[in-house]
Amino acid sequence: MQVGDLSTPALLVDAAQLEHNLTTMARALGERLRPHVKAHKCTALARRQAKAGSAGFTCATVREVEGMAARGLGDDLLLANEVLDATRLGRLEARVTVAVDSEATILAAAEGGVREVLIDVDVGLPRCGCAPEDAPRLARLARARGLTVRGVMGYEGHAMAVPDRALRAELTEQAMSVLLAAHREVGGEVISAGGTGTYDLNPWASEIQAGSYALMDTAYARLDLPFRPALSILATVISVSPRGHAVLDCGLKALGMDHGKPEIAGGHEVLLVSDEHITFLPAGRVRVGERLRVLPAHVDPTVAYHERMHLVDGERVIDTWEVDLRGW
Amino acid sequence: MQVGDLSTPALLVDAAQLEHNLTTMARALGERLRPHVKAHKCTALARRQAKAGSAGFTCATVREVEGMAARGLGDDLLLANEVLDATRLGRLEARVTVAVDSEATILAAAEGGVREVLIDVDVGLPRCGCAPEDAPRLARLARARGLTVRGVMGYEGHAMAVPDRALRAELTEQAMSVLLAAHREVGGEVISAGGTGTYDLNPWASEIQAGSYALMDTAYARLDLPFRPALSILATVISVSPRGHAVLDCGLKALGMDHGKPEIAGGHEVLLVSDEHITFLPAGRVRVGERLRVLPAHVDPTVAYHERMHLVDGERVIDTWEVDLRGW
Repeated sequence: MQVGDLSTPALLVDAAQLEHNLTTMARALGERLRPHVKAHKCTALARRQAKAGSAGFTCATVREVEGMAARGLGDDLLLANEVLDATRLGRLEARVTVAVDSEATILAAAEGGVREVLIDVDVGLPRCGCAPEDAPRLARLARARGLTVRGVMGYEGHAMAVPDRALRAELTEQAMSVLLAAHREVGGEVISAGGTGTYDLNPWASEIQAGSYALMDTAYARLDLPFRPALSILATVISVSPRGHAVLDCGLKALGMDHGKPEIAGGHEVLLVSDEHITFLPAGRVRVGERLRVLPAHVDPTVAYHERMHLVDGERVIDTWEVDLRGW
Repeated sequence: MQVGDLSTPALLVDAAQLEHNLTTMARALGERLRPHVKAHKCTALARRQAKAGSAGFTCATVREVEGMAARGLGDDLLLANEVLDATRLGRLEARVTVAVDSEATILAAAEGGVREVLIDVDVGLPRCGCAPEDAPRLARLARARGLTVRGVMGYEGHAMAVPDRALRAELTEQAMSVLLAAHREVGGEVISAGGTGTYDLNPWASEIQAGSYALMDTAYARLDLPFRPALSILATVISVSPRGHAVLDCGLKALGMDHGKPEIAGGHEVLLVSDEHITFLPAGRVRVGERLRVLPAHVDPTVAYHERMHLVDGERVIDTWEVDLRGW
């Protein structure tokens, strides 16, 4: 099948760019890489990451853990998120570790039949994570409930997208000093942290939870990273106005918009995004029926809108992968 | 089933508010209402709109038209959008009318086996629609290709969310004067326009394509409309920080973010939205495990993330509807 045969909008993954990204990250981190599947929600892509050398994966939802386990990718799944109902996790034939940051989430893990946990520590990002000084108490509580505490987790998300590399490194070091102090009290072999933006600035974590590096987006592309944009949305010009603008059949329901408007390859200027349309100012002459590539600002919520992604080599569609980890 | 039994995040529809919205709009417009299914993407909800008196529906994608036809709701489906490949539409056992605004889209309709079209006219919103003076030529071309031209369409989207009612009315009147002039040249019985924001300010259109009125969102709720917020997302507090913030298990993949951040019922202040989290400043004491309702800023791209919506009466789940018109 050729790219021209696809109906639009269609999610495209450039096979060579993806391969470059997977290889580059695997070379940099080796077994320290625990890829985060939330960025692509696709077990076929996760299988490529496994082939590139990763045994364990990071998930953000129970559905992602279930889907990975169902496809035989359950050797070591970390749900890097808090849950109050862990019964679906406890049922899985897979090694599942879940993040906990409170008595309630520890009890939920134990009652749900989960056996292993990480103590999630607040290292600066205002989100989940216990106060660092509370980590030892929670570890004791978890052990008293029969749970194995594998170690700690602390996501330095506030450092992740900082453009200045030196400042990003400084924020990462500060965050990790907090996490390492908690780890000394908690014990265990795992210190889980990091992401695409800090993958080479965080030597302290025993494993790095990077996800976006595989597909990338325009927001991450602004940083000084060796990963290349692999994701685009194929769209068709459905209208060209004598007023000067033109319209693509790709809109809010095909794009994560929290990081702002997408870009269009070829230097066209995006004016307006509505449910199923992008209105743009063409850089040159475009005609109705012509196809363009839209580059999303944020990969994760973009992929979550699509049922499938097409792996392409130039104009050839090599494979079509189901985005099978969507929902909750 | 009770609301408390649902796993989160879960899309909730308040049955009484929905009923109020459907009844209010049906009373106001009667047979002039052609509900837009893009706002809810749910044939079960469309069936309610049919019971409230609508025979015809508006769609934004080929998939929406297909899904409506498959569920026996294909008496009069308008695809209010341009398509370059109409073959899937031509195959349907349903009455399908498609918007055209160029030679290419007219040829695509004819070649795809579609039999009826509307000439889509630019009435001010920078999106699809031909130049008003070009409408008669396109109508002749369509008829020469054997298509029935049912009339014209022109969406005054630039007026839709204008807070000042007088200005909204003025912009609508200007837009409709353009559309009526085109209609005099084109002919046909249909003048299709309008939306939730202008439903009672547009007496010129023969039919109103309103969609958001059924479920509403916080953006539309700021206007002077008699429709009530019926949609919310049930979410669970998964973490409470001694730093003062708390976290819900509902994030960017459960919310359309193009109209800004969601609100949380109860006066809690939203600080940060990430893939699967909302970080918020509680208005009062909240505890881990407590459930709150999140009110999305934009209904359409929110619904498109969810597999199902739950119709609720207080704490009782009356019905669960599949969001079956997603994708393309």
